[in-house]
Amino acid sequence: MTYGCIASMKTRPGFREEVVSLLLSAADGLRDAGCELYLVGLSEDDETTIWVTEVWRTREDHDASLELPAAKDAIGRAMPMLTGEFTKQEMSVAGGLGL
Amino acid sequence: MTYGCIASMKTRPGFREEVVSLLLSAADGLRDAGCELYLVGLSEDDETTIWVTEVWRTREDHDASLELPAAKDAIGRAMPMLTGEFTKQEMSVAGGLGL
Repeated sequence: MTYGCIASMKTRPGFREEVVSLLLSAADGLRDAGCELYLVGLSEDDETTIWVTEVWRTREDHDASLELPAAKDAIGRAMPMLTGEFTKQEMSVAGGLGL
Repeated sequence: MTYGCIASMKTRPGFREEVVSLLLSAADGLRDAGCELYLVGLSEDDETTIWVTEVWRTREDHDASLELPAAKDAIGRAMPMLTGEFTKQEMSVAGGLGL
């Protein structure tokens, strides 16, 4: 089964849109790296939480993607806008619709 | 922006595969109901947690889908296999890859 993860992060107040733009700009190169789904959502519970759901061909492809120059650049630019509160759930993808 | 939600449920021990099969069988009719993504994953943290990430054209489409006969049937069959522990995060979908 393919590898998936569901992550959340919190931004400092007022920075959520900017972090979302960074995440979306970094998405362009992910398909070639083995990414099948990269979904960015804004929590409706507050003004600072971002949810990211990802599906990758393999876990190794996901881990390797974090070392891509574009990813490292985006992470470096996003970090000062984040509070440091993260969650991450890893999963085996069973299937569904729209994948 | 389109509507999304990330939900989790826990099954009674030994019933996760059966519940996943139910969820996947119910996915067939969702596209016509306005569903753009329905992703079912098995948590790697334990043997009983299921994660479901959904993207819908509108929140109203999502809410209406729960009243579809196939959905009500699947929910009714799954409930005895679940512990009753659920989480749900609602979000506005900002974009991404593979949608």
